Amino acid sequence: MNFYELMNKRRSVRGFTERELTDDEISMLLEAATAAPNACNYQSWHFYVVRGREKISGFVPTIYRGEWFRSSAIVFVVCTDAEKLGARFGERGTDLFAIQDTACAVDHLMLMAAGLGLGSCFVGAFDEVECRRYLGIPEGRRPVALVPVGEPATDTPKRPRKPIGEVVTFVGEDS
Amino acid sequence: MNFYELMNKRRSVRGFTERELTDDEISMLLEAATAAPNACNYQSWHFYVVRGREKISGFVPTIYRGEWFRSSAIVFVVCTDAEKLGARFGERGTDLFAIQDTACAVDHLMLMAAGLGLGSCFVGAFDEVECRRYLGIPEGRRPVALVPVGEPATDTPKRPRKPIGEVVTFVGEDS
Repeated sequence: MNFYELMNKRRSVRGFTERELTDDEISMLLEAATAAPNACNYQSWHFYVVRGREKISGFVPTIYRGEWFRSSAIVFVVCTDAEKLGARFGERGTDLFAIQDTACAVDHLMLMAAGLGLGSCFVGAFDEVECRRYLGIPEGRRPVALVPVGEPATDTPKRPRKPIGEVVTFVGEDS
Repeated sequence: MNFYELMNKRRSVRGFTERELTDDEISMLLEAATAAPNACNYQSWHFYVVRGREKISGFVPTIYRGEWFRSSAIVFVVCTDAEKLGARFGERGTDLFAIQDTACAVDHLMLMAAGLGLGSCFVGAFDEVECRRYLGIPEGRRPVALVPVGEPATDTPKRPRKPIGEVVTFVGEDS
């Protein structure tokens, strides 16, 4: 499957079968996440890998409201770990670059998941404070994304995109 | 090329040949960028596509310092366009979700570039104010990334990553 096919196969999947992930699958997902482009190669991220349906169910509803979340085989809690970026770039490092780095890591992880026939979802609308408490995440890290992964329970249709002309402005020659 | 091969082929490329991009390549890069996962499918992004070496040279050194930038065949200036996200989620929408969305768009664009044999770089350390002025970017959009693309002038070695154990914490069963 080439990248064009892969990006069109990826969906935001919200509901999974009971199949667990293999250790190899988990390793591939983490290898993909950490291969993402990132500022200065500081790798300003930390991944909490949450396994076991009981532990995962504890996210609902305090950290995240959706009942479907309980069906996840595994949840990656993606955190910024931006001490070095902050020391070098100040708030631009902690509040922009580290968020971009972790988002690229999530994007890579989701694409790898799709390539493995797995489903995933980029969940940003969750309670950071409760998440931090539940997992004992220290001050220096900030949880910015939950990424549940599993075997998709159903097919999810592709979401439409705006016409390119609405989101692009051409500048310079031939414009 | 499968995704594992693609993600290992991608590099941060800083220096390009004189070859221009074709219209088809530009279309593929934009299609990839806009296929990225994003909050609520609001597609809270806008892409300025800057063509022409003269226009691109105008970025240096005021917007971005690196002389190599002048060699770019094309530059994508990726902006958040977060009015809808802000209305629904407040600052979390504008300062987190929209930044994550645009970072995923850049990640997708860079992976497509690598698949096409092109090089690219995620440039975050640039002057937003000067960039806004140079391109006439309106208030509602925030430039968060410059992505120069072109045919790589030289091979760039793969950067090493930390051992997985340094950036991962396992939680739950089997931990």
